[in-house]
Amino acid sequence: MCQNHGVAYIKPGVVEVQSIEYPKLALGDRKCEHGVILQIVSTNICGSDQHMVRGRTTAPAGLVLGHEITGLVIEAGRDVEFIKVGDLVSVPFNIACGRCRNCKAGQTGICLNVNPSRPGAAYGYVDMGGWVGGQAEYVLVPYADFNLLKFPDKDQAMAKIRDLTLLSDIFPTGYHGAVSAGVGPGSIVYVAGAGPVGLACAASCHLLGAAVVIVGDMIPERLEQAKSFGCEIVDLRKDTPLAEQIAAIVGVPEVDCAVDCVGFEARGHGSDAGVERPATVLNAIMSVTRAGGALGIPGLYVTGDPGASDAAAKEGSLSIRIGLGWAKSHSFYTGQCPVMKYHRQLMNAILYDKIQIAKAVNVEVISLAKAPQGYQDFDKGAAKKFVIDPHGMIPN
Amino acid sequence: MCQNHGVAYIKPGVVEVQSIEYPKLALGDRKCEHGVILQIVSTNICGSDQHMVRGRTTAPAGLVLGHEITGLVIEAGRDVEFIKVGDLVSVPFNIACGRCRNCKAGQTGICLNVNPSRPGAAYGYVDMGGWVGGQAEYVLVPYADFNLLKFPDKDQAMAKIRDLTLLSDIFPTGYHGAVSAGVGPGSIVYVAGAGPVGLACAASCHLLGAAVVIVGDMIPERLEQAKSFGCEIVDLRKDTPLAEQIAAIVGVPEVDCAVDCVGFEARGHGSDAGVERPATVLNAIMSVTRAGGALGIPGLYVTGDPGASDAAAKEGSLSIRIGLGWAKSHSFYTGQCPVMKYHRQLMNAILYDKIQIAKAVNVEVISLAKAPQGYQDFDKGAAKKFVIDPHGMIPN
Amino acid sequence: MCQNHGVAYIKPGVVEVQSIEYPKLALGDRKCEHGVILQIVSTNICGSDQHMVRGRTTAPAGLVLGHEITGLVIEAGRDVEFIKVGDLVSVPFNIACGRCRNCKAGQTGICLNVNPSRPGAAYGYVDMGGWVGGQAEYVLVPYADFNLLKFPDKDQAMAKIRDLTLLSDIFPTGYHGAVSAGVGPGSIVYVAGAGPVGLACAASCHLLGAAVVIVGDMIPERLEQAKSFGCEIVDLRKDTPLAEQIAAIVGVPEVDCAVDCVGFEARGHGSDAGVERPATVLNAIMSVTRAGGALGIPGLYVTGDPGASDAAAKEGSLSIRIGLGWAKSHSFYTGQCPVMKYHRQLMNAILYDKIQIAKAVNVEVISLAKAPQGYQDFDKGAAKKFVIDPHGMIPN
Amino acid sequence: MCQNHGVAYIKPGVVEVQSIEYPKLALGDRKCEHGVILQIVSTNICGSDQHMVRGRTTAPAGLVLGHEITGLVIEAGRDVEFIKVGDLVSVPFNIACGRCRNCKAGQTGICLNVNPSRPGAAYGYVDMGGWVGGQAEYVLVPYADFNLLKFPDKDQAMAKIRDLTLLSDIFPTGYHGAVSAGVGPGSIVYVAGAGPVGLACAASCHLLGAAVVIVGDMIPERLEQAKSFGCEIVDLRKDTPLAEQIAAIVGVPEVDCAVDCVGFEARGHGSDAGVERPATVLNAIMSVTRAGGALGIPGLYVTGDPGASDAAAKEGSLSIRIGLGWAKSHSFYTGQCPVMKYHRQLMNAILYDKIQIAKAVNVEVISLAKAPQGYQDFDKGAAKKFVIDPHGMIPN
Repeated sequence: MCQNHGVAYIKPGVVEVQSIEYPKLALGDRKCEHGVILQIVSTNICGSDQHMVRGRTTAPAGLVLGHEITGLVIEAGRDVEFIKVGDLVSVPFNIACGRCRNCKAGQTGICLNVNPSRPGAAYGYVDMGGWVGGQAEYVLVPYADFNLLKFPDKDQAMAKIRDLTLLSDIFPTGYHGAVSAGVGPGSIVYVAGAGPVGLACAASCHLLGAAVVIVGDMIPERLEQAKSFGCEIVDLRKDTPLAEQIAAIVGVPEVDCAVDCVGFEARGHGSDAGVERPATVLNAIMSVTRAGGALGIPGLYVTGDPGASDAAAKEGSLSIRIGLGWAKSHSFYTGQCPVMKYHRQLMNAILYDKIQIAKAVNVEVISLAKAPQGYQDFDKGAAKKFVIDPHGMIPN
Repeated sequence: MCQNHGVAYIKPGVVEVQSIEYPKLALGDRKCEHGVILQIVSTNICGSDQHMVRGRTTAPAGLVLGHEITGLVIEAGRDVEFIKVGDLVSVPFNIACGRCRNCKAGQTGICLNVNPSRPGAAYGYVDMGGWVGGQAEYVLVPYADFNLLKFPDKDQAMAKIRDLTLLSDIFPTGYHGAVSAGVGPGSIVYVAGAGPVGLACAASCHLLGAAVVIVGDMIPERLEQAKSFGCEIVDLRKDTPLAEQIAAIVGVPEVDCAVDCVGFEARGHGSDAGVERPATVLNAIMSVTRAGGALGIPGLYVTGDPGASDAAAKEGSLSIRIGLGWAKSHSFYTGQCPVMKYHRQLMNAILYDKIQIAKAVNVEVISLAKAPQGYQDFDKGAAKKFVIDPHGMIPN
Repeated sequence: MCQNHGVAYIKPGVVEVQSIEYPKLALGDRKCEHGVILQIVSTNICGSDQHMVRGRTTAPAGLVLGHEITGLVIEAGRDVEFIKVGDLVSVPFNIACGRCRNCKAGQTGICLNVNPSRPGAAYGYVDMGGWVGGQAEYVLVPYADFNLLKFPDKDQAMAKIRDLTLLSDIFPTGYHGAVSAGVGPGSIVYVAGAGPVGLACAASCHLLGAAVVIVGDMIPERLEQAKSFGCEIVDLRKDTPLAEQIAAIVGVPEVDCAVDCVGFEARGHGSDAGVERPATVLNAIMSVTRAGGALGIPGLYVTGDPGASDAAAKEGSLSIRIGLGWAKSHSFYTGQCPVMKYHRQLMNAILYDKIQIAKAVNVEVISLAKAPQGYQDFDKGAAKKFVIDPHGMIPN
Repeated sequence: MCQNHGVAYIKPGVVEVQSIEYPKLALGDRKCEHGVILQIVSTNICGSDQHMVRGRTTAPAGLVLGHEITGLVIEAGRDVEFIKVGDLVSVPFNIACGRCRNCKAGQTGICLNVNPSRPGAAYGYVDMGGWVGGQAEYVLVPYADFNLLKFPDKDQAMAKIRDLTLLSDIFPTGYHGAVSAGVGPGSIVYVAGAGPVGLACAASCHLLGAAVVIVGDMIPERLEQAKSFGCEIVDLRKDTPLAEQIAAIVGVPEVDCAVDCVGFEARGHGSDAGVERPATVLNAIMSVTRAGGALGIPGLYVTGDPGASDAAAKEGSLSIRIGLGWAKSHSFYTGQCPVMKYHRQLMNAILYDKIQIAKAVNVEVISLAKAPQGYQDFDKGAAKKFVIDPHGMIPN
């Protein structure tokens, strides 16, 4: 059990499965007796991993990737009291101490004690505290009593593992976008982006009772995927303006609220397609959301983007039509999803069959060895969510 | 009683008191039997009037200014049921029908029935529905039963009219900024701007129980005014960065929440002072607000600014460090204050002496004839709030 | 069109269809130029009508019943501006002026201007302002611009009229119970009572994303009805305690939150069945709701009950285990549902097929002449919601 | 340092300072390496201690009292990471693990892991988990990183220790009552009870911006105390009904919201004075609170009261006018205050001189030896809050 392998970032466009260190109950000099070692049951490739792999961040070579983790507890530090060896658990991608002011307020995405350089940390992510990633066989989870969500029944959980694996990030993240945009029964919503987060958001909108969920993207397969579970779609490659496409669906050129599930790597719409337009989604959702609406922004915007096309964008400054938003009294909700705020309820929604989230995002299980291929396929826009099964434990 | 005079916008930099039409219970062809005619007791000059007078909007010559109105009901349309002739009332600057979806939800700043060109209307303002302004002797107030707040006792109200006159706009507007930023007991707040809205916001923060209220501006008299009622201050003309000035006050370089009471006519700080930097306040408040904080943005941002220094800003697009806000999980609340949501409670706070709002914003009462002078003084940065007394009714 | 017939309360146990006055735009001396006359398309018999018909209130003989009204506008007062003759509309059972402090705050269930004797009014109900009931051919709706919800498309609406007729009361009322109890995605909920409001509440819980909805009642047909759309059930005639029955379903003897859809005419459970126990539901929901949970109480509790079994209950005082609720930090939400807060969204949920509410409550359409029979069947516990079709306009 | 003395409950009416065990990092068999030992700097006598001392609970003889604790950390368990020996800290009276579902949701008053018999625990309280009380020289505080609030500067804190000592319970408890009743700027509030919690609530209402705070009690000294910091008062010994006394103050016989700071040991008003009437405060606040208002209920109601005057009350069942509350659409908020939700902000309010809470509740510092006398004086209705200074550390 002292061997370990993980997916490492090598250089732009290249990841590799390497032999990596078996985790200890420590992060460098920092003791983690409050932590556990997990045997990883499932670990997903995320769109935000792609930002690193595309070279759009300052991630160093050798960084072990992976922040969407589900696993079995195989060792527990002496200070762990409620989580037990043998528990099957979901790991929120946000690492949180459970003791600081922000954690106490439920804002686990900006914990003050787990990253010396800024609030908030994550596994396997640049500038996020140096915690080792979990696209691997084994991983350390600190502050285990606080962070982990235990599944009530292991057999039941393994039978639904394709769904439950999404609790570590994209299901709560998409849901958070919907909730912060004010989606509820009867809402008419526009979801920008039909990648996994966008699809998870769209499925969450349905769970929240939305009347109409309109999903926009430029990749036909992804739009088909959205359609497959009852969404309306708009094809952003078309020259027909977004507002007109929306009007064709709901009779008016606006929605009650909107969610940006794309972030800073957005590209232009219509004839502008392909060109990087980092503010295009933000401006688009302002233009189609009714006055008084709220905008959920789970899509990532960064403080530094070495690959940006202009100097301002390299520092995270984008040209935003704030005057339009102001005239419409819009509210804007940004930032990482605090997973812990939602994962228990969403677990129940899965366990009691209220949602088919794996189907909605089109989960495909692959081996650890196939992870590099998964990265490539995902980068090309496959309408799939790749779930790595490092120990071959996931039933067919 | 059939004569009327009002303050009209003539051209950039020039306003004039003119003879204007006596109001009817109508707006052009639109009958307003739901309206009342007010004899105006007090009507204030507002910073947003200055945007028009400086030529930063498309306001046409001859527009009668004024949206901060308090008055006596002297005539009531046949459909008015609860407001009576003789009532002394405060007029929310937002005009609202009380029957549309937004009004029913309390969002009276974006009423759907009072402005054919967009949601939301106001008296005497460009693009806000064409309703005649109230820096005048008489004015029409439509949907009177819904819009007006009646003061319970006329004598008591006249004795506090310098305070109560602020209920029509800047007191609720400053308060709304504070509330939307999440100010409450114990908060440490930064208020950008010490004009009347900034000062009203700062006083509101105290009313809400804030522990420390830090006000930033570049005009010494306005900073002195803020100091006079217990605020801490930062002088933005200094080269010392804002965060350092804050740290000198509260020990850390950040605040719990912040309010932008400046808007799009912001200028650079420190050595950049004087240069128009429309996004500087938004970026500054993101930089000093702690992760997880909220930003109230009552300061006006416009969809079109003919006087802007670059093409993007002319369309209301500003270069915003959204990546920084996202990393800090900030929320942003924009738009007109829906005055009706707050004016009754704030009236009570005035009537029961919980706040000295007139003193905080340094009210100076002037005659209608002196209004043009008031505009000039205000434009030069006088630390005063000019209240016009068209009928000489305000006691000394 | 000057004839009218309606259902009148005669004496305990007896209602009758009588010739009644054709409505005017007035209530006695009070002019209602803000009102409209409706040709009633559908009007439902409600459980709260039964309180009157059973003689449990001080309702006078001759009172025309009916507060669940949907209709066509056939005449509009001169002050009505946005509602037009020909509109097909839903009428919230709460009558509200749209101009008072409570209406402005969205609390239309306790309007201050429509009932001289207390806040809040309704059509055809004792002590609710004297407004004539709508189990009739025609009815006056005052403050029409404010109160009415217009359906966007008449043909579409007529095709779904069995569902849309429930927007005037029980769908929002059941929904309000669920919302005030904090039901959301993943919730495990107990709904006390499987009458129409209980069933509407249970269906609303599903719409809100609840994971498990458990409905309790003592009438087998009503429990069957609850089962038919995916609810779990507990049969309160059994001696097995409620908590044990819940544990048999979800593994633990408690729920996240609960809704009382029964009210003061509750009867004992188990061996106590049949005996009037007015506090039994309140005490039961406290006993099974987890610490920190909230209790929605849309079920009616009255200030005076001439038919109560003891002196305290005659005044609306019940023996409540408040110590238990306090130990569990429960919150309690009582009162009439403010229908307007919810009806637009719920209309969308119906129009876009997110909910089959008519099926859930088992709507049965009857003629006006059959109304007395409907009252009798409903009183016997029929698992049906009777919808009166006074003009034979409802398609099969 | 291995000696310890504490205040023990002996029998109804009698407490005694005894030599007690010096605390270990354990509660019986339960290891508490997450805990710290505090040298107690201040510890207050609370009204809820009186319930035990009066024999109104099942507290066993020998129980060491005290749950309002402020102290210096003198020993820290090996798992304590952020709290350090030497820190001066406030202890929330609720003991909470920081790892369960309720703690994660901020509901630390009903923690699931610190009391085997029910959710929620406290120091030195019957049925609250068996944790040793802190009216002593030393005490164990478990889960120290989570529970404790560290004062930023020890000297500054010692200078304000009379105020800061109230952060462990009554200041947050009174504040929680106000917040849950919806008190805010401009509110007109009725606070039932002028004991320390009532006074703390009244002072909190002022901090929250209330326009008028009316306090009711039957003890003249307590009413005088309320008057001393700007409250209006009603003397409940008078025969004039409460509503009339309120009308004499604010012109109408009702308030916006109300707080019950009395609980189950309430006595009748007016001619009924002196007679135990456990529901009288609940019924009174319903009768004077306006329709739509909320009722905060921090006053304690118990599940079992051996000293109650009737069988129902012995089980915590009281005769409540729920019909009246329902007719007024009231909401009711019960339960222990979750101190951690508020103590940081309230500490700031104290440190920045926004509130003089010690003065409002009339703190009197006494030695540990004088604690029995303090209990007696408090029981007689002294308008004082007794703060025990076991080590003579509190400056004059």
